[in-house]
Parts: sequence; structure tokens; C-alpha cells
Amino acid sequence: MSRFSEPQDPVFARLNTSLSFDRRLWHHDIAQSRAHTRMLAAQAIIGDDDRDALLAALDAVESELVADAFAFEDGDEDIHMAIERRVTEIAGAVGGKLHTARSRNDQVATDVALFTRDSAGHAARAVDALAQALIDAAEAHLDWPLPGYTHLQRAQPVYLSHHLLAYVWMLLRDRERFSFAEAQTAALPLGAGALAGVNFDTDRDAVAAELGFDHVAPNSIDAVSNRDFALDYLSAAATCATHLSRLGAELVLWSSEEFGFVTLPDAWTSGSSIMPQKKNPDAAELLRAKAPRIVAHLSALHGVMHALPLTYNKDLQEDKEHLFDTVDTLDVCLAAATGMIRGARFNGERMSAAASDELIAATDVADHLVKRGVPFRACHGIVAGLVRVAVESGRSLGELTDGELVAASDQLDPIAFRELLTQTSSLESKVSVGGTALARVREQLGAARSALALHAA
Amino acid sequence: MSRFSEPQDPVFARLNTSLSFDRRLWHHDIAQSRAHTRMLAAQAIIGDDDRDALLAALDAVESELVADAFAFEDGDEDIHMAIERRVTEIAGAVGGKLHTARSRNDQVATDVALFTRDSAGHAARAVDALAQALIDAAEAHLDWPLPGYTHLQRAQPVYLSHHLLAYVWMLLRDRERFSFAEAQTAALPLGAGALAGVNFDTDRDAVAAELGFDHVAPNSIDAVSNRDFALDYLSAAATCATHLSRLGAELVLWSSEEFGFVTLPDAWTSGSSIMPQKKNPDAAELLRAKAPRIVAHLSALHGVMHALPLTYNKDLQEDKEHLFDTVDTLDVCLAAATGMIRGARFNGERMSAAASDELIAATDVADHLVKRGVPFRACHGIVAGLVRVAVESGRSLGELTDGELVAASDQLDPIAFRELLTQTSSLESKVSVGGTALARVREQLGAARSALALHAA
Amino acid sequence: MSRFSEPQDPVFARLNTSLSFDRRLWHHDIAQSRAHTRMLAAQAIIGDDDRDALLAALDAVESELVADAFAFEDGDEDIHMAIERRVTEIAGAVGGKLHTARSRNDQVATDVALFTRDSAGHAARAVDALAQALIDAAEAHLDWPLPGYTHLQRAQPVYLSHHLLAYVWMLLRDRERFSFAEAQTAALPLGAGALAGVNFDTDRDAVAAELGFDHVAPNSIDAVSNRDFALDYLSAAATCATHLSRLGAELVLWSSEEFGFVTLPDAWTSGSSIMPQKKNPDAAELLRAKAPRIVAHLSALHGVMHALPLTYNKDLQEDKEHLFDTVDTLDVCLAAATGMIRGARFNGERMSAAASDELIAATDVADHLVKRGVPFRACHGIVAGLVRVAVESGRSLGELTDGELVAASDQLDPIAFRELLTQTSSLESKVSVGGTALARVREQLGAARSALALHAA
Amino acid sequence: MSRFSEPQDPVFARLNTSLSFDRRLWHHDIAQSRAHTRMLAAQAIIGDDDRDALLAALDAVESELVADAFAFEDGDEDIHMAIERRVTEIAGAVGGKLHTARSRNDQVATDVALFTRDSAGHAARAVDALAQALIDAAEAHLDWPLPGYTHLQRAQPVYLSHHLLAYVWMLLRDRERFSFAEAQTAALPLGAGALAGVNFDTDRDAVAAELGFDHVAPNSIDAVSNRDFALDYLSAAATCATHLSRLGAELVLWSSEEFGFVTLPDAWTSGSSIMPQKKNPDAAELLRAKAPRIVAHLSALHGVMHALPLTYNKDLQEDKEHLFDTVDTLDVCLAAATGMIRGARFNGERMSAAASDELIAATDVADHLVKRGVPFRACHGIVAGLVRVAVESGRSLGELTDGELVAASDQLDPIAFRELLTQTSSLESKVSVGGTALARVREQLGAARSALALHAA
Repeated sequence: MSRFSEPQDPVFARLNTSLSFDRRLWHHDIAQSRAHTRMLAAQAIIGDDDRDALLAALDAVESELVADAFAFEDGDEDIHMAIERRVTEIAGAVGGKLHTARSRNDQVATDVALFTRDSAGHAARAVDALAQALIDAAEAHLDWPLPGYTHLQRAQPVYLSHHLLAYVWMLLRDRERFSFAEAQTAALPLGAGALAGVNFDTDRDAVAAELGFDHVAPNSIDAVSNRDFALDYLSAAATCATHLSRLGAELVLWSSEEFGFVTLPDAWTSGSSIMPQKKNPDAAELLRAKAPRIVAHLSALHGVMHALPLTYNKDLQEDKEHLFDTVDTLDVCLAAATGMIRGARFNGERMSAAASDELIAATDVADHLVKRGVPFRACHGIVAGLVRVAVESGRSLGELTDGELVAASDQLDPIAFRELLTQTSSLESKVSVGGTALARVREQLGAARSALALHAA
Repeated sequence: MSRFSEPQDPVFARLNTSLSFDRRLWHHDIAQSRAHTRMLAAQAIIGDDDRDALLAALDAVESELVADAFAFEDGDEDIHMAIERRVTEIAGAVGGKLHTARSRNDQVATDVALFTRDSAGHAARAVDALAQALIDAAEAHLDWPLPGYTHLQRAQPVYLSHHLLAYVWMLLRDRERFSFAEAQTAALPLGAGALAGVNFDTDRDAVAAELGFDHVAPNSIDAVSNRDFALDYLSAAATCATHLSRLGAELVLWSSEEFGFVTLPDAWTSGSSIMPQKKNPDAAELLRAKAPRIVAHLSALHGVMHALPLTYNKDLQEDKEHLFDTVDTLDVCLAAATGMIRGARFNGERMSAAASDELIAATDVADHLVKRGVPFRACHGIVAGLVRVAVESGRSLGELTDGELVAASDQLDPIAFRELLTQTSSLESKVSVGGTALARVREQLGAARSALALHAA
Repeated sequence: MSRFSEPQDPVFARLNTSLSFDRRLWHHDIAQSRAHTRMLAAQAIIGDDDRDALLAALDAVESELVADAFAFEDGDEDIHMAIERRVTEIAGAVGGKLHTARSRNDQVATDVALFTRDSAGHAARAVDALAQALIDAAEAHLDWPLPGYTHLQRAQPVYLSHHLLAYVWMLLRDRERFSFAEAQTAALPLGAGALAGVNFDTDRDAVAAELGFDHVAPNSIDAVSNRDFALDYLSAAATCATHLSRLGAELVLWSSEEFGFVTLPDAWTSGSSIMPQKKNPDAAELLRAKAPRIVAHLSALHGVMHALPLTYNKDLQEDKEHLFDTVDTLDVCLAAATGMIRGARFNGERMSAAASDELIAATDVADHLVKRGVPFRACHGIVAGLVRVAVESGRSLGELTDGELVAASDQLDPIAFRELLTQTSSLESKVSVGGTALARVREQLGAARSALALHAA
Repeated sequence: MSRFSEPQDPVFARLNTSLSFDRRLWHHDIAQSRAHTRMLAAQAIIGDDDRDALLAALDAVESELVADAFAFEDGDEDIHMAIERRVTEIAGAVGGKLHTARSRNDQVATDVALFTRDSAGHAARAVDALAQALIDAAEAHLDWPLPGYTHLQRAQPVYLSHHLLAYVWMLLRDRERFSFAEAQTAALPLGAGALAGVNFDTDRDAVAAELGFDHVAPNSIDAVSNRDFALDYLSAAATCATHLSRLGAELVLWSSEEFGFVTLPDAWTSGSSIMPQKKNPDAAELLRAKAPRIVAHLSALHGVMHALPLTYNKDLQEDKEHLFDTVDTLDVCLAAATGMIRGARFNGERMSAAASDELIAATDVADHLVKRGVPFRACHGIVAGLVRVAVESGRSLGELTDGELVAASDQLDPIAFRELLTQTSSLESKVSVGGTALARVREQLGAARSALALHAA
């Protein structure tokens, strides 16, 4: 019997039901029901025969779900109720004992924590795979020069390996974020009951151990009200997606005819419905376009939690779709980025030609003067003046005369000056730690490889 | 033949395909293909027999889709390609003429504009239905007093009708927003081709007329790059959802035991998995929780468009899921709000008792002194002092002695003072336009009804 | 006297005070106090001498504020209280009558509505100025070819005028949005009192007329709870800022060495602290970076309003900073965009060279076959095959032999084929309405000019 | 000399300048300049006399800034340039050596990292202070019953201490987030130069050690492009602010007349401009309203970083205002929450009366039946039926007859049943770990105190 005398309005059922999306939690729900059942029997809250009947029924339900043979019914409001209903159909009245000493509030929090933990682990591995692809690409293009850009203006030449490794360090930080999110799922909500704890002498530590939680949530009210771990996962995902949007944006840019630094493989591009010549970097564009979607999910969950009085409120059901779509979106984006990096063909000639732009040696000329004792700020002014003379007279820096050079500064040695204008000079002069000189990049590559190896270990 | 020599990577296909969601555009796509076909023939770009063959095939495809008998194939990247493929299977080689003088870029922009126009119209009607339910409820509770709150503190009594009508005016503004969004879909993109226009002497005005557009998009580049109308719809939906979140929040609050102002019907509430006594306002809570989701979709589409160079970029494919989920979410929320308002039973006794709190007549006492010539700011101080005396001595305002009253101000008439402390006095003294006096509320109700009738006309 | 016996905590004062930002509302506040005062006297709620004293004091306060000689005091919680305090210092006890028949709730809503109305009008004019600059630039570069891009791949040639006009149409839509926001401020909140109306027979229509409102807010509860107009302004600003971010992104891209389509003037670029050769498009980058800021303000105000019970809550104070920063940010962005467009020097040679890429004529070749009766989809395949042969053999399309062409399709005329590969042919063949053929662009330019002239009228 | 021949446009200067906000970085900027200067001399890149002159000038500049006597000039684009200018005025030409081997790109990244590190530490301490206040309040109200709510419906009684401790665990997690953010600032950007490293044999480790960084950023490109640590801080702040919004919302709710659970002190409330009786919980409302602001800053910075090609772009200047406003907002919110909790007076009578609602013992009755062997789901139905009978007949559960009870279930013992309806029974039966039984709450309080003590250590 229920305390309700009217049936649900169909519109309400449409708004309220979560089965269409929360069914993907089924194996977490079964795992927790198994652990809960074993604990109830161990604590003599139910009998051993009840336990066995419940476990057998859970096995049967699992088989049906694995085989996609589970018959959902109209009245199944969510996956938890659907599984309990089916357990009861299979096991008979004893099925009604499954929900002893727990509530949907702690049950759902536990499922979502398990899901988040798995998703964070999965994301971490996918991040590693992309980092590995970038490291391999860096190794394969160790000494390929291209311009480094600031403000999308050519600034100083760097090696492609150095540029690709920049993304590796972003990803290694993303990994720390996913580990943090994973660690935030370490407290078992189950056992908090509806909000106040339960009327039984349960053994929450045993359940925690079986389900892989480090410890039990210390406050039952917080346990059913808390979705911080979901926010942590979404925040990690948002930053990772933002990183991918930068990578995607560069691949789009570099595959333009104007840059021509990379050719994306046919397997990762599309044609046009009307322009037969087109080869479009759709996957790279979508890396770019998916970041705002994930950031929006993060914002939305903050919005859901905003100003929500304790303890459980139905609003919390809105955690799942934001989380699930983020997991799926990030998964396909990481895989796509990995595939594209593995398939990308870089165009050494185009990059090298761009890196040979004389103007980008200007800082080196200034530093040459510094080494002769001229204060940096004065050097900057001298070189800026030479650039202006060259640009206004339509010449390159290399075409300035000895007279013009010496007039700009008597510390300027025309021979050294012209040598500095060549690309190699500049690349190998960046000897500071983390800089682009080859020895430094090799050092960095080793460090990145070691960091990644730690994860695999 | 294609310019590609490798097949798509399966991960790319998973990232790139939009068929799983854009199939809901099918009837817009068929409508535009019909209009486009007729125009091509009318302009002698294709023959009349070609036209007839294409239209017959489109009819057949439509029948399959209506009957849910359309067989999608793995290679169908999106609904547009799926329909064209099937048209060609049915009609033969002539199917290849369907895409003459158009591109997927203008085709998809047109479908999305049609979808947005329909959705805005649909939302407007759903908004009207909720407004009507609120007007009916206002009429049924015309003179039921309850406290008006500021800062969630009882401030001044109002009639329930007046309070409910506040939501009607919000909704009437929402309707203007949806009308604005609808008007922003009035320019036909079709005919813009990939971006530059087409090589044929088309008649875009004819297509516009058949599809119900007011005029043709005046710039082909803008036509394929523009998603402003989607932003306009999302913005209207976000504000409407924010309004509904306020209504939801009040229903949650009012159905608490502490307020007890409303009983939501069984049909719109849920029980608890563990607490047999519970009757939870889930639908009202979800009204509250869905607003951040819609606001996030709006933000996300802004994020997608952010810094996107012209013209069409694949990023624009991300318009659809944000739009579709918003349409569906808003639809069920408006219907749920309407159902709840129609089913809510207000508790006149609880509201009236709360509205009888003497303290909320304090402004009226101050105004009584104003009318005797005391400057308002001084009156405010006199009454605040009386409140403090009452609160600190644990008495109500009505229990203050004549002596205390006259000591506070010699302009204070004890008899008038005590009469002011009754609720009715306060309610009917709010005679300004838009105020809570019954005559004013009746005036307002008439105005709201007229505004709504205009929409029905 | 006050009902409070303890002073405010200094931290509370820091959190609570709005004077640091709401002081910019002062002239709206004085304008409304004048109108309110005149109405009170006209309705005989205060005497004519009171009115004159109040108006004189308001004049004096205005002079102090204009002269930046107004002495704010620590206890001034907001601009409204500061002005009322000063009026009372100047006029004496009669100053206490200024707040008769109004509340801070309707007062602040009125100030914010006035501010929003002004800001929307100001934005509309700034949008027009940018549109005019773009129209002038379009006119000055009417027939300068450049590639149109889809997916940042060269797609089809267009004229620069056509490309620049795409932004004009975006801006003309922005203008409609600002007009809509302006129209949403048309209902006067003043007279709603705290929430329930006032105890006086006021003449709200007279106040509305003096302050330029179309009508009075019909529901006092809604009047003090409503910030929709602020959301409408923020939404208009967000879309406008997103448009500017696209313009900024293109200016950054086009001023890269790789594109080289535009040279931004020295007046709108910066140097580098270390690289003397750099000329960075900082202003264009900031156009790009400011859009997320404005979108975030829009989201934030939605968040503030989320689930807020009626009527006024302190949360509403958070409307102002979001609004003010948006107004200032948009103002400087629109002015900067206008300045940059007016100062930009386009590089016709670089653009034209890029537009001469033979591949971008591929659609025209396909359409040539269409005109000879081949279904479009077949044509697309034929040309895609030719592109593949050319790309794989390292030749341009123009270098394919007659034999190769005829082998691809017997409908392909080698002479017509090679003529189609020239840029001009393609540009002038886009004859559809809104297309890039010069006659069509001239038509469009006229339409844009007319639309703009309507605003000036 | 500069490479520019025109001055900056005043509008550009207004858009571009960051001095108005980045001046608050001055002491970080001076700290890094000192460390950089010492390193340059230690590596013999500048002489010891140069070092001494620069350090003396930096001391002088610091004194001016401390004394608020630093004269900013119109041409000072940012704080970095202002300080370098002044150093040069004081020290003469040697001032020009300060910028040797660094760029504004690595300089600003270093300042922002230092600022973020400090801010995260500061937030952690403020979080601790609030947690301490809550622990103290929990201790003072250890055994005060109130209803725990789900869906804002009374669900099960809990102790106030238990409820307050729920916030403590949220805050302890916030602290972990701020520690994580702090850890993400551990890599020194300085020495990355503009993007590629520098031409000098610098000692970045020495600089890192002096400035308190754990290690140097391993990739110069990433070092100048990275703002992840700012995102990490903003994410921690957003979650913390969301927690505070829940606390604020409960304080608002509890201080309503309907709940009446708490009286906020005068020092943390405001009066009304018009209603003399009002005492408004403004500070609590603002806790609620500030969360969306901080979440918006987080979204905005994600938006700024979105799709940004490497390396430094001017867009990154938009990190600062989002960060600064978040730091200030969170600071005042945490302080206000601490003050309010310390000053709040809880109303034990009102809470206890609410907790005595018989209906909230329903779960205990069901569990009573469970212990007699009835499956939980059946018990739930039995009790729900009793609730329905009581509600429909307008009686309390305690008023049901023995006959009605036994008719519902022969396992139901009327005497035990009526005893379960008393509040104390329910509270002390929640014996599971983390539950509301006093012994459990004491345990929890100890754990919270220990966790906090670790931070202080």
C-alpha cells in the first residue's frame, strides 16, 4: 500500500523518471547490493538463507542485464527500483529485504561515486595514451624547426618536439586532476540511510572494503547531500577539454593552406557536400567545439547545487546527465586527439621556411648587445630601430648595410649580426632549462617519459 | 569517386556523426527539399520530369519516416545525407540532382531555422497555457490573504491572486522573448550555397514563401555562419526556465510543514524508498533544477561561436544538441508547472494566519503618522522604536500601552494604531495602481486576461 | 531610532555595501526623486513648499555630485541613502518626506531600469558606428578578391566587401536585440512600494511620463522582483560580444605572417617587452577574450535569480556589478573594433594570390557539368576524382591533360574547364541573391546602408 | 626607439592597459625581480655592482609603493613596466639590465602563480576559521534535536550538532581543493623567456628556491601559456562558494518566521527603508548570491583559454580580473559566514517542536517490523497505509487505535509503536557510523577536530 491515492500524472512521470539515463549505473548498483547483502547477513540483520536467495537473484538480474534481456517496466522509476522489483520477482518476498538499512539517497550517492571513480580512472588512462602519442611524435620530430608564436605572430623558432611536449605537460597536469577527483570518491556514502544513519548495527567498513572505498563517509547528512566528487570530475574534464580545444585549434590552423604545417590523414577528415576539392579537419574542429559543452556541464552542476538546503533534494538527480555526457564526450575527444596525432603528417619544409623569417632573430641580436655590456632595455630600442628601418625601406634585416648597423650601435658587429639571423643559431642558443636547445628538449623528453612510466607502473 | 583514399576512422565517425540527434529534423529537411525542387524546376534548372521524380521519391521517404520504416545505414553521416541517399535509391540517378544549387551549409542552417521557429511557437503556446492556469488560480483565490515576503521575512500582506499574477507577467514577457526569437528566424538561409551564393539563377523568394520565411538572408557568408536565432531561442528559454525555477522554489517552500501554504496533488509528488510518510514535491524541485541546465546550454552555444572565423565551421554542428535538449526540457517543465498549478490545493487558513502577524502592519502605522504631517523618515524611526520595545519585552505591538504609544509620538492615536494592526486594513489600503487592494487586483486580472486573449486571437 | 541594538559588523558592512558601485546611478536616482517629489505634491501628499524645498535640495546635491564635491560618509550604505541623507542635511526635517510612498525596492528597480535603457540606447549607437565603419571599408574594397573559408580551408573566392558586410548584418541584428532590451525597460517600477503597492493615492502615470517610461508596471510584486530587462540587455551584449570575438579572431588570423591579409595600424597594436621586432594585435585579441566575460555575467545573473522566492531579496543587489562591467566592457570593445576597422590596411596582393588557388574553383567545374545534364552528385564525384589525381601526382588542376579530363567525363570540355579555374569566373558566377557577384554585393551594400539610415533617422 | 611610428589610440590604451588591476601584484613583482637580479649576478650575467644598484632601486620602489607614494604615469601600461621605469629613474641606465634574460610573458606568469599560491593559502586558513566556528557551534548544541529534511519535508530528527558538522566536512574537502590548487603553482615559469627559453646560462633552480617554488617549469612554451593553476584556484573557490550558498540558504530559511530556528544577530542583518519592523538576513542572502559570480569567473577563464593557440596571447591578460574578484569575494564571504555562525542564536524550542512531528518516526516503525522478520518493502507498505489512514481521517499516528494497528500487521505491537513515535527514540536509534546517535556525533566531532588540528600543526 502507498500513502498516495492518485496515480502519477504522465507528464510528471516523464519529468521525474531517470531510468532512461541512470540504467547505465546497473553494474555499480548490483555490486553495491551484493556487498550490502553480505554485510546484512554478517551482522545477522538478515539470515544466511536470505542472503543466498538475494545473491542468487542478483546474479540472475545481472545475467539478464548483460544479455540485454532485462525487461524494464513502465512503473520502473529508476534503475534501483527496477533491479529491486526484478530481484523480488525472482526471489519472492525476501526481495523486500534488500532495501533493509539503506535508502535510495545513500544508494544513489554510492552508485554515482563508483561511476565517478571508474570514469576518472578511465580518463586518466586515455590522457596517458594521448600523452604517449605526443611523446612519440615529439621523438619523431625532435629537431624540426618551426616558429614559436606569441599573439599568433612569429616570435622565436622552436623545435616541433618542444611544441608538442607543451601539450604533454598539460596532460600530465590533467592526470593529477583526475587522480584528485578519484581520491574525492574515497568515502562510502552507503549506510547513511535517508540522511540520519540507520536503525541497525551495520558494518560500513566491510562494505567500503568490498567496494574499494578507503573509508566511510563520517557524516550521514553530508553523505547524501554531497556531490563534490562529481564537481571535481567535471572540473578536471573541463580543463582537459580546454587543453584539447587548444590542440584542436592549432591543428585546424596548421592544416590551413596558409600555414600548411600539417596534413591530417583522410581517416580524420571529411569532404564537402558541394565542394569536391575540400578536405576538412572536422575532428580537430570538434575538439575545439566540445570544450564549451563540458564547461557548461560543470557550470550547470554548480547551478543545481546552488542554494540547496540540506539534505537530499530531487535536484540532485540532475547530477547524472551532466556527468554522463561529459564522460562520453571526453572519451571520444581524447581518443580522437590520439588518433589524429598518430596520423598527422607534419610538413618540415613549410615549417622550416616559416622559422627562417629573419625578424624572429631580433631578440638574439638584442641579447648579443647585452653580452657586450649594453643594458637590455637599450638593446631592445636599438634593434627595434633597425627593424623599423628595414620594414620602412622594404628590406630584410640581412640587407641592412654595415654603416646602418654601426650607426645604430657601435657595439653591433655586422658579421655576428648576420650570423644571428640564421635560424639554427637562435634555436641552439636557448640553453636555459626548459628551453628549446636540443639538449634541453632531450632532457625534457626523458622527464616526460619518466612521468608517464610512473603511471603505467 | 571521392578525393579520399582512406576510410574514416571509427572513432572519427563516432565523433563526427550527427545522425543520432539530427534525425529529428527530417520533416523540415523534406519540406525544404520539396520547395527547393519546385524552385529548381520553375527556374528550368532541372526538368519537370526530374522534379516529379524527386517529389515522388521525397513522398516515399516521408512515408517511410512517418512509419518508422526508414532504414538508416552505417554510412549515413547525417539526416541530410540519409534522405538524399534514399531518394537516389528510389528515384535512381536523378536523385543526384536534388543537391543542385545548394550545399549542406545552407541546407542545415535552413533546417535549424525552421526547427527553431516551430519550437519558439510551441513554447509560446505552452507559456500561454501556464499563464492561463495561473490566471484561473488567481481568480479562484482572489481575496485569500497571505504574507508577501521580502528577504523571506514577512513584509506586508497581499492577496494570493496578486502573488500568482506576478508569475503571469513574467510569462507574458517570456512570450515576447519567444516571439522575438521566432522573428529572428525570418531570413531564409537556403540559396547561400556553401558560402558564396550559387552558380544558378535561383528564385530564393519563392522558396522563402513556400517555407514561410519573410525574406531571404541578404548575405550568403552570414547566412551559413549565423546561429543568432538559436542563441535568441536559448536566451528566451533560459529566462523562462529561471522564472519557472522561482515558481518551483516557492512550491517547495510552501509545501513544507513549516509554511503549509499548499498541498501538491499526489499526481505530482513522489514517495520515499525508505520513509513511508514522505510526500515529496519532486516535480517542483525539478523545475528548480532544470534552469541551470538550460542556462548552461545558452552559455555553451556562446562558447561554440566564440572566436570562430567565418564562414561555416564544423563547430556549428554543436548547435543542435544544445537546442534540442533545451526544447525538450522546457516543454516538460512548462507542462509540469501547468499541471501542478491546476492541481495545487492552497491552504487558506495557514496563509491567513501567517498574514495576521501584527508586525507586518508596521509600514501602515508609519504612513498613518505621515498623513498627520510627520516626515516619513521620522515615522520610520518612531515605529522601529515601538517594534524594538515590543520585541525586547516579549509583547506584540497590540499589547503596547497607550502611554508607550503616546510617548513614542504625540501624533500616534492608540485607537487608530490598533485598528491598523488588523490585516484587512493593510490589504485594502494599498490602493496605488498595481497594488494589492482588491479593486486593483481585479483591474490587473482583466489586463492579464486581455493580454492573453490577444495571443489566442 | 532603529529596531537594532547592535551596530553592523565591519565585515558585514564590507559585504553589504553597494555604494562603491551603485554611485554611478546617481543621476538616475536624482531624476526619479524629482519626478516622485513633483507627483507627491501634485497629489497633495506633500505640500508645495515641501516640494520646493526638496527640489532645491536635490539641485544642490546634483551640483555637488557633478562637481565631484559630494562627501560620502561611512554610514552611507548605498547611493540612495547617501542622497537622502544629504537632502535632509540641506533641507532639514522635510528631507524625511522624500521617501514617502516609495521603498528602496521600487526605487532601485527604477534606477536600474533607467540605467539599462540608457545603456541599451548607447550600445545601439555604438553598434551603428561600427556597422558604418564596416560599410565604408566594404565600399573601399568592393572588388578585392580573397578566399572564402569553410573549416578554415579555402572554399570559394569572395569579395572583401561581401565578407565585411557579413559582420554588418550581425550588427544589425544586435541592434534589434538592444532595441528589444530597451523596450523591456518600458514599465515603471516606482510606486510598487516595498512589494504590495503604497497607502497613498499616487499618480504613477505622471511619474512614468516624466521619466520616459511607456507605462507603469501592472503588478507591484513583479515590479520589485523583476530583473528580466537586465537579462535582456546582458543577452544582447553577449551575442554582440560573441560577434566581436569572431571579428577579433579574424583580425588576429589575417595579421599573421602566414595569412598577411591585413596590417593593423601602430595605434592599435603593441610591441613586446623582449622581442624588438614584434607588432602584436593586442586589441584584436582582447575583442576575442572579452566575450566569455560578458557571457559569464549573463550566466551569473541567471544564477542569482535562480530559485529565488518572491519578492525582493538582497541577492538582487548582485544585478549591478554584472551589468555595469558589461556596459563598460562592451563600450570599449565596440569603440576598439570601430577604430581598428577604420585603421586597417588590407593587403590586396596577398588576398588575391590566395584567392587564385585553382582548387577553389572545383564547385564551379561540377556545376558546369550539371548544366550539361549530369546529376550534381555524379559531378561532385567526377571532380573529386580529378582533385585526387592532381594531388596525388603533385600537379595543379590546370596541369591535368585533356585526356585525363575527358576520361573523367565525356561532358567535360577542357577549354571551359581551364577557364573556370580562373578566379574571376568563379566570383562573378555567384549570381544568386546574397551571392558574391559584384552586382549582388552592390545591391546588398545599398540594403545595408538603408537599414543603417533608418536608425539615424 | 620603437618600431612604431604612431602613438597608441586612446581607446586602445583604455582597452589594453592592465595597470588599474595588476598593480596589486606589485610585491610579487618586486620579489621576483630581486630573486632574478641576484641570480643574474651569481651567474655573472650582470656584475655585482649592477646587482647592488638594482636591489637598492627595488628597495626604494618598494618603499614608495608601501607608502602609497609611487607616482604612476600615463604611459605605464602595467605594473611590470611601471616598476622597471621607476627602477631606471632611480638607478639610471643600469635599470635597463633588469629585464635581461626574462620577458613579460614569464614575468607575469610568475607573478600570477605567486598570487594564486598566496590566495590559496589564505583561503585555506579562512576555511579553517569557519570550520572551527561550526565545530564550536556543534559542541554548544550537541543534543539539540531538529528535523532533518529531504525535499524540504521533515524526514527524520537529527541533532543540530550533526547538521552543523555536515558543513565542516564540506569545508574540509574545500581545504583539500585549495591545497591542490596551491600545489599546482609549484612550477616556476620564470626563465622561460618569451616562449623558447633564454640565451643565457641562467640558474632557474636558485630563483625557484628563493621564491618558494618546488621546481622549475620543464617546458618554456607551456610555462608562458599555462593558467591551469588559476583554473584550479577558481574551481576550488567555486565549490567552496557553492557550499556557502547552501549555508546561506539555510540561514535565510531558518530565520523566516515560519521556521524560526535561528535568530541572526543585529550585527549581521539590515533594516528596511520603509518597513520599520524588518530585520533582514542580508549577509546570508549575499552568501547565496555570490556563488554564481564565482562560478561565472571560472567559466569565463575557461572561455578565455578556449581554442587559444600556443603560446602567450594577450587574451591571457583576462586571467587577472576573474582571479582577483574571486579572491576578494570569497574572502569576505568566508569571513561573513564565520561571523554569522559565531553570532547566531538557535531557537531550541522551535526546533524541538518541529522534530516532534510524529510522522517523522515512520521509518522507525517500519524498521521495528523488519526486526520482527517482515521484509522491509512490506513494512514500508504497512506504515504508508497507516499514514494514509491517519491523514485521511485527520488524526495523528498516535491516535490510531490498537485495532487499526493490528489490522495493518499482526507484527505491530501497539505499545512499542507509540513509543517509537517519540522523538528521542528515533534519534538515539541511529547507531550506524556517521549516524545521529549522540555517541556517533561525539565520535564525529572528535574526528573533525583532529582533521582541523592537522592544519594548524
